[in-house]
Amino acid sequence: MASDMTLYWVSGGAPCWRAMICLEEKGLSGYNSKMLSLDNKDQKSDEVLQINPRGQMPTFKHGNVVANESLAICLYLENTFKNQGTKLLPDDPAQQALVLQRAVESQNIREKAVFGVLSYFFGTKPEDRTEALLEERKKACHEELQIWEGYLAKFGDGSYIAGKDFTLADACAWPFLGVLVHMGFNLSQYPHLANYYDLVKDRPSVQAAWPPLWKGTPDKDTLKDI
Amino acid sequence: MASDMTLYWVSGGAPCWRAMICLEEKGLSGYNSKMLSLDNKDQKSDEVLQINPRGQMPTFKHGNVVANESLAICLYLENTFKNQGTKLLPDDPAQQALVLQRAVESQNIREKAVFGVLSYFFGTKPEDRTEALLEERKKACHEELQIWEGYLAKFGDGSYIAGKDFTLADACAWPFLGVLVHMGFNLSQYPHLANYYDLVKDRPSVQAAWPPLWKGTPDKDTLKDI
Repeated sequence: MASDMTLYWVSGGAPCWRAMICLEEKGLSGYNSKMLSLDNKDQKSDEVLQINPRGQMPTFKHGNVVANESLAICLYLENTFKNQGTKLLPDDPAQQALVLQRAVESQNIREKAVFGVLSYFFGTKPEDRTEALLEERKKACHEELQIWEGYLAKFGDGSYIAGKDFTLADACAWPFLGVLVHMGFNLSQYPHLANYYDLVKDRPSVQAAWPPLWKGTPDKDTLKDI
Repeated sequence: MASDMTLYWVSGGAPCWRAMICLEEKGLSGYNSKMLSLDNKDQKSDEVLQINPRGQMPTFKHGNVVANESLAICLYLENTFKNQGTKLLPDDPAQQALVLQRAVESQNIREKAVFGVLSYFFGTKPEDRTEALLEERKKACHEELQIWEGYLAKFGDGSYIAGKDFTLADACAWPFLGVLVHMGFNLSQYPHLANYYDLVKDRPSVQAAWPPLWKGTPDKDTLKDI
């Protein structure tokens, strides 16, 4: 069933990880997996640009269906394979709203915690870097993570991001934590998030989609003092 | 039915417009409408922060359901009132994937065309402004709009953003065009987008949710040379 599906992705891209987790959770692990190299600019090849004009990863194709926003891919997989594998979107309206809210909202972790601080180190010219700028980015990062720490605290340890079950919200939010930790962020500053990270880390879908270029290499230390 | 719904919003906020269009399209115009003033920092009031820790607009409450990401609100409304009003998400998998893709992807119009160029004028300190920076932002803006012009060109005039019917993709994408035009952007550079803008502009849901602070005041000219 998954043989007519293709996912183009890059190692370590959290949005790609989201899609890959959903593919695994829905029992679609037999998809055609095309890992691209950013170094080779594979994502700007004609093959990709034809179906994805921005050349951003991931890109997904299922028969004549194309989707290349990770959230759209995840929603498509859940809606199309509703009764297969893990139920990623609950039927109960209140639960469903919470899952959708957290799934969309997780983009804030990317913007404020991942990119916000990483762009200080990688995206800011040395002459533009100041202690004040770093402090501003750190503050936004910690304010964001504190919000998620609060969400988890309300449910108690052992719960997922939107309650007792693994859902679309986890597939969308967790990969950003995966990137933060890989970049050296000390998640033990947030005990509930640290527990949650561990809870999801060893899930088969997450492990199956673990960035291959990270395996066998130590985590970075870019964010160790954040 | 809509009397147990409350939407907190600000005039001219495209994400708020998205939610309001969906409420209208689903026949839920009787919701409690709370327009907040950014000048008064209403969005940081205790009433709002209790259900929306970032204090970003919109915020939506329906009984015990809370959602404050516009896309989550729109998806919740469609899923909960599936058989009521306009069908915003088609059943056909390929059509549905396209609508989801365009709905999520429309965030790029906000980032590159709306914020990208507006932040040059409003968010960049005068001493940091350069012709090169403006050109870079303009280029990103036009590249983005060209992608959407291409989408519409494929369908032909008179079509909506994902085909012959008005969908969630229009509710999500059009408000950004509304903001661009209000800020003086000359949309006639993109004939298909200009036609599409006109097609949707007079739709009752769009008019009902038209930013009240724009009414009776001329459009701005900030983006007239972009």
